[in-house]
Amino acid sequence: MTLGRFITLEGGEGAGKTTQSALLADALIALGLQVIRTREPGGTPGAELLRGILLDGSIDWAPRAETLLHFAARAEHLAKTILPALHAGRWVICDRFQDSTLAYQGYGQGAQRDLIILLADHSEVAPDLTIVLDLDEPIATQRIGRRGDAADRYERLDAAFHARVRQGFREIAAAEPKRCVLVDASASVEAVHTAMMTAVRTRLLD
Amino acid sequence: MTLGRFITLEGGEGAGKTTQSALLADALIALGLQVIRTREPGGTPGAELLRGILLDGSIDWAPRAETLLHFAARAEHLAKTILPALHAGRWVICDRFQDSTLAYQGYGQGAQRDLIILLADHSEVAPDLTIVLDLDEPIATQRIGRRGDAADRYERLDAAFHARVRQGFREIAAAEPKRCVLVDASASVEAVHTAMMTAVRTRLLD
Repeated sequence: MTLGRFITLEGGEGAGKTTQSALLADALIALGLQVIRTREPGGTPGAELLRGILLDGSIDWAPRAETLLHFAARAEHLAKTILPALHAGRWVICDRFQDSTLAYQGYGQGAQRDLIILLADHSEVAPDLTIVLDLDEPIATQRIGRRGDAADRYERLDAAFHARVRQGFREIAAAEPKRCVLVDASASVEAVHTAMMTAVRTRLLD
Repeated sequence: MTLGRFITLEGGEGAGKTTQSALLADALIALGLQVIRTREPGGTPGAELLRGILLDGSIDWAPRAETLLHFAARAEHLAKTILPALHAGRWVICDRFQDSTLAYQGYGQGAQRDLIILLADHSEVAPDLTIVLDLDEPIATQRIGRRGDAADRYERLDAAFHARVRQGFREIAAAEPKRCVLVDASASVEAVHTAMMTAVRTRLLD
């Protein structure tokens, strides 16, 4: 039995991760692959419980506690959902993974970058491919405004925060070119999907 | 303003930590010190929330997730309760701290010992003194049985588990003699208190 492949989608709010994750899954299924889609924080009952605790804003977690909670949710998600799927030969598409912790907490909040890198390096598995959807801040803000749903704790933070997050994602992608591909998310849905499929074909299917 | 001192009480179930923590606090207050008593997991609203999630047994956390949750609760507790008290010159007596994570998860469950040590080493503060209350397993079991309250997730584990936990605490105390004192908890309440006060006087007051 060959292992499945692990693809993560990263990027700020409004970059189109949910839409692109669905299109990517459909395309891989059409190629005859078994695919599961999941997301972080969350993806398993314990991790979803922690997602609620992290995002509802009822507790203003200390930065170090927040980082550790994200990695606790991730450990649960890996153990219960991602690793079993990969071992069963499935491809896993995950909306956000540890690069989001580094971009949001490490770059956005300017906290705990050394701890985040330490924990990421200590992880049981790294993504085979990470697609970073990169989007200019004004377009992201427009797209979020159009959604109409209630903003969560991260979405409510200011433009300077989101600019730091974007810069964080760009630096992560530049630092790990073998794992990461930066895709311009201001292009049309179809163009972004095509760019993603090119990356998947080149790096994982050929 | 001098910093307060940070004392942790460690040991298995039934070793008398709660009783001894109260006696120690009274004795230090009688010496004119400002003292707060706290406990782990817990000690602040966010950490108490995580305590409930960890101990109620509704989710069978992956070992790595469980370890990270304990350290998340600890980070919150340190940031919101312990460090502010120490900076205000108070003495902090804490019922369980990171040695419990190493003893219960690392030794008891045989999991995540490297991650626990990594996170403990990365902590913002280490205890000035750790008192390990050491108790023979049969006496511990008797004492727990007498309590009458509902057993939590750790108390329900078997004798072999608790023997490994005890051995873990003994090894931790032996490995860090400058920080740790091993006290025989099978002695009378008064004798244990006297041994603890001797350690406090010798190491923190003289």
